[in-house]
Parts: sequence; C-alpha cells; structure tokens
Amino acid sequence: MNQLLLQALKCRNQGRAPVWLMRQAGRYMPEYRALRTKYSFLEMCHNPELVAEVTLLPIRSFGMDAAILFSDILVIPEALQVGLRFDDGVGPIIERPLNTAADVDALPAVNMREALNYVAEGIALLRPQLDVPLLGFCGAPFTVASYMIEGKSSRDLRKTKEWMLRDPISFHKLLDRLADDAIDYLLMQADAGVQAVQVFDSWAGVLAPGQFREFSLAYLEKIVRKVESRVPVIVFCRGSSIFAPELAEIQPSAISLDWHCHPSKVRQALPQNIALQGNLDPDILYAPLPVIRKEVTNLLKSMQGDPGYIFNLGHGITPGVPVEAVRELVDCVKSM
Amino acid sequence: MNQLLLQALKCRNQGRAPVWLMRQAGRYMPEYRALRTKYSFLEMCHNPELVAEVTLLPIRSFGMDAAILFSDILVIPEALQVGLRFDDGVGPIIERPLNTAADVDALPAVNMREALNYVAEGIALLRPQLDVPLLGFCGAPFTVASYMIEGKSSRDLRKTKEWMLRDPISFHKLLDRLADDAIDYLLMQADAGVQAVQVFDSWAGVLAPGQFREFSLAYLEKIVRKVESRVPVIVFCRGSSIFAPELAEIQPSAISLDWHCHPSKVRQALPQNIALQGNLDPDILYAPLPVIRKEVTNLLKSMQGDPGYIFNLGHGITPGVPVEAVRELVDCVKSM
Repeated sequence: MNQLLLQALKCRNQGRAPVWLMRQAGRYMPEYRALRTKYSFLEMCHNPELVAEVTLLPIRSFGMDAAILFSDILVIPEALQVGLRFDDGVGPIIERPLNTAADVDALPAVNMREALNYVAEGIALLRPQLDVPLLGFCGAPFTVASYMIEGKSSRDLRKTKEWMLRDPISFHKLLDRLADDAIDYLLMQADAGVQAVQVFDSWAGVLAPGQFREFSLAYLEKIVRKVESRVPVIVFCRGSSIFAPELAEIQPSAISLDWHCHPSKVRQALPQNIALQGNLDPDILYAPLPVIRKEVTNLLKSMQGDPGYIFNLGHGITPGVPVEAVRELVDCVKSM
Repeated sequence: MNQLLLQALKCRNQGRAPVWLMRQAGRYMPEYRALRTKYSFLEMCHNPELVAEVTLLPIRSFGMDAAILFSDILVIPEALQVGLRFDDGVGPIIERPLNTAADVDALPAVNMREALNYVAEGIALLRPQLDVPLLGFCGAPFTVASYMIEGKSSRDLRKTKEWMLRDPISFHKLLDRLADDAIDYLLMQADAGVQAVQVFDSWAGVLAPGQFREFSLAYLEKIVRKVESRVPVIVFCRGSSIFAPELAEIQPSAISLDWHCHPSKVRQALPQNIALQGNLDPDILYAPLPVIRKEVTNLLKSMQGDPGYIFNLGHGITPGVPVEAVRELVDCVKSM
C-alpha cells in the first residue's frame, strides 16, 4: 500500500510529495464521459459498482497516490428529501429549496447510515481493488445549506446571506443539523473503510471574516472534533488562502488551500503539525505542457522537504482539461 | 470643501472617517431608476449633463464625503471600437471580443482625451456643484482586457486565462496598451478637475499570486507611477484582502480592500503612509438596520484613530439594496 498520503497527513512523509486532484474522476476523462452516455450523474452516484468503477478510473489512467470516492456533496440534502436533480449544462437543482425557518424545522429526521448505505457499499467494493488510500468526503454545513437555500448554483449567495443576516437563529439551526448529518455520514464512511476524509466548504469564500468564523468555521470545528479521532480530516474552502489561520485553530489534519496564496508562506504562519494540501491554479491545466511542468516544479520546490505537504489543485479539475495535461502533472510530481 | 477624504488619502485625517460607497449612484436609487426609464445606461454615460446629474444623486440624498464620477470601466474598450452594449439583465456585451494576437495588433490608435472628452465635460459641470471631492476612475488593464476577451461577464475567465497562459506575449501587449490608455484617460480626468482616482481591478481575484504579480500588479504599478504625481490613486481589486502586501509595494495612496479581511490586521502589515479603504460586506446592506449599525460601528471602532482610513464597502452596492440601509450606513459613519 502506497503510504505517502497518510504519512503526509501525519506530517511525517520522508518521501516525495503525494499527489491527488480534486474531481480527478470527472468529465475531462473520456472513460467517464462514455459511462455518462449510459447513466445519469445521480444513477452513477447511487450505484455501488459504478461508484467503484468511476473512482478507479483516474488511478488506472494516471496513478495518483490516493483515490477519492466518486460521489457528490449534495447526497446529504438528497437524503433529506429536498429533491435533487442534475440538469445538463446547469448543474445541481434543489426542487424544494428552503425558504423559511419552518422549512428547516420540517426537514425529516433521516438516518444517514441507512439513506446513504449505497456509499458504504461502494467503499466496500473499492478497498480490495486499491493499493492507494481511499478518501471519503462530504460537503460542509455552510456550503450544503447554501445549496438548499439557493436551490441552484449562485454567484453571490444573496438568498443565503440575506437569511443568515436576517434570521441567524434558524440559519444556525440548519447548519447544526447539517453538521450532525455530516458527522454521521463521515463516520459511516470511516467504518466502511475510507482512510481519510475531506470536507468541502466550497462556497465559504463569499463570507466576511466574522461571518466565516460564526457560520462556517464553528461547524467545521464540530465535524473535525468528532471525526479526527477516527480518520484524518482535510478541510477545504474557497477562501482558505485568507482563512488558513482560522482553519488552523480547529486543528484538522490538513488544510487544502485555494490557489490564491503561496503555500510556503502559509506554512510559515501555521503550526508544523497541520499538513497543507494544494494549490496549483486549476486553469494551469489549460496551458502548454512545458508551462504545466514549470508551474508544478516551482510549487514542489517551494514545499521541498516539507513532511506535511500534499500536491493538489486549488480547486477541482474543470471538464475541458486535456487528459495529457493531467498525465503531465501527475508524472511531474512523481518524478520529483 | 469637505477635506476628510483628501486628508485620509494623505494619512493625515484628524477627524472622523470619511465615507463613500462604490457604485453609490446606481440602480438601488429610485431617482436613478427613473432616469433609466428615459435613457439607456450608455446614453447616460455619454451625456455630460446626465453624468453630472447622476453623480450628484447620492450626495444630495445621503451626503457622502466624496462623489464618484458616474461612468463605466468599459468606456475605454468602447473607445477602442470593440462594440459595447448593455443588455438588460445580462450586463455588458462586447460585440467583437478579441480572439487572437492579430486582434490586439488591429486595435485602433485612439486619442483617449478626444474619444472620452464627454467625461471631461461632465467633470467640468460637476465641480462647481460639489462641496465634496470628486473621484475619477477607470478599469485596470487586466480587468478591461478580460472583458475584451470574454465578451461578457464570466465566472471563471476561462478564455482570458487560457490566452494568458498560452500566449503571454500578446496578452502583455494588450495589457500594456490598456495601461497607456488608462493613464491618458486618468490624466485627462485630473486635468478636468477630479481630486483623486480609483483604479478597479475587479476581476484580478481569479489569479494565482505569481499571475497577479505579472499580469495585474505590473500594470497597476505603471498607472500609479504616472498618475500619483498628479492626483492620489486608490487601487481596488477583488482579492485585495490577500494581495494587499503586493499592492503596497507599488505605493498607491490607498488600497481599497475587499470584504474578506479585517482592515485592522492588514494595517499592521502595511506601511503607515498607505491609506486603507473599505471593507464592509456589501450584503450587510440587506440586513436589518440594527445589524447594519452594529457592523458599521464595529468596523469603525477597529480602525478608530487611523488617520488613513476611508469607510467604504468591500465591493459595489448591489441593485436590490434598500435606500434606508444606505442612509443608515452613512448616518452611522458620520455620527462617530
């Protein structure tokens, strides 16, 4: 078993930096697109065999040092019966978005272990087929709540922020509920066999610092406290370049940085027992191969010898990225 | 003449903090919407009388400590004849976006002083009517180039970044050209009577730090060097919370911060001769009035006694903001 990632998460990696990429199993891969002609995105998420198959695709093609479960951050709201669908070219749609405090109170009590058991089945199928660690994940409360309120992708999260500012009590109630669900879901993943988890607060970057602390960090902390004793937790948010010191306060195993900072500078300001992951600009994958090589090399050199560094992008791979670019990136990290 | 803003720009303000708001003359005002039923947005930008009238609206209604010229950052590309129009509910459209290095070379040589003389006429009309300083502005080269390449608002600036990464030489040529045009335009505004200017690099927040330095900061620096000897320059970018140390290197009179940082913390890291402007989350204006008062007060207290602090938002006012919220904000700052 390739131990680079797990060692790096303990800040004890003596070898080269491990590499995996957010959304490494995705539309940029022709094998993935071929499967999508036969199944909808949600069919693929719900079917344990397909979960395992898709999770393995990038490992077979590129040999990353970790696999990440193929799934979606919105399976928790789906289990909460708000009506999730994915429209081609639009993205996720929540059919019954939350509008009032009463809508929060009316959310059904759902046993996440039962509702999301298909994920545990996928993990069980995957583990024997993998010689690299398997990462689980979930959406963070603020980001999941935002989707449930907006009903679809939103540039500014106006409805969410207006709710947050006008009725913080019911907003906190929703976040707390989603944190509990996330904890149950992550512990189920750990029981099923994932060796680490990542929590995605993809939309926390819209928040001002005080808001971040109150509405994002507090719930990330709750999750980290409950889950870190079982598996290492990586926290990612848009805005992590600026909020890294706050994220360090809650002592996750690792912070995954967006692409707006130099990780080597962030390292100087953080405790040495927190691993740092990231943070190549995902758009670099649209550059010519020599530029990719140069950028990857520069980032690796800046973190050289750091026993708690994990190579990744600063955000997920986008669908138009050429397969050769991803191969170049992974080969480059592995050759260092 | 109210001198608070000009004193703060010199970091010598002994009075209360001055206040103005980005996009303070805009759709949130009923008087503005009434004018827009009679004129298109561009008609209003092109007509010196209307420029003066709209610029004055928020000063009359709320009594900010500075007026900012009513105009748009895209008047330079419009002068460069790429075809600018504003579609309701869509925003700006560039009819002939740039696609190749040849398109950059083919941009016409345009005398900005002549092409944008209507702005100088608006300034000339405004000055005698104002007892507060008048700010001019322009778009920064990276942001203006992005619009010219994307052709419309874009969430990720994919086309721009791909061009930047694949053909940096022609991209630099475009940026340099736009910096020269911006300098001519800002100096014309200074000649016409504005007492300070702000440069908006609204889209620089998509860049990684190395990219920011190369493609945004270098051209902001060129502008600051040429214009600071005439009038104080405020630089604003999305991403300024993280890029503030880099922005300080080019020594503008002031840095306008987006809403993701505590200005008091940024202050500790920057030279004392650079003023700081900002940075209330613009969405706070959707909160109940007591919340607005509390947030404004907290921000003011955190910067209390700072002779180089200017109260503003972290981004422009959005169209749905209630007029009462803006009044509450301005009154609150002025009562401190």
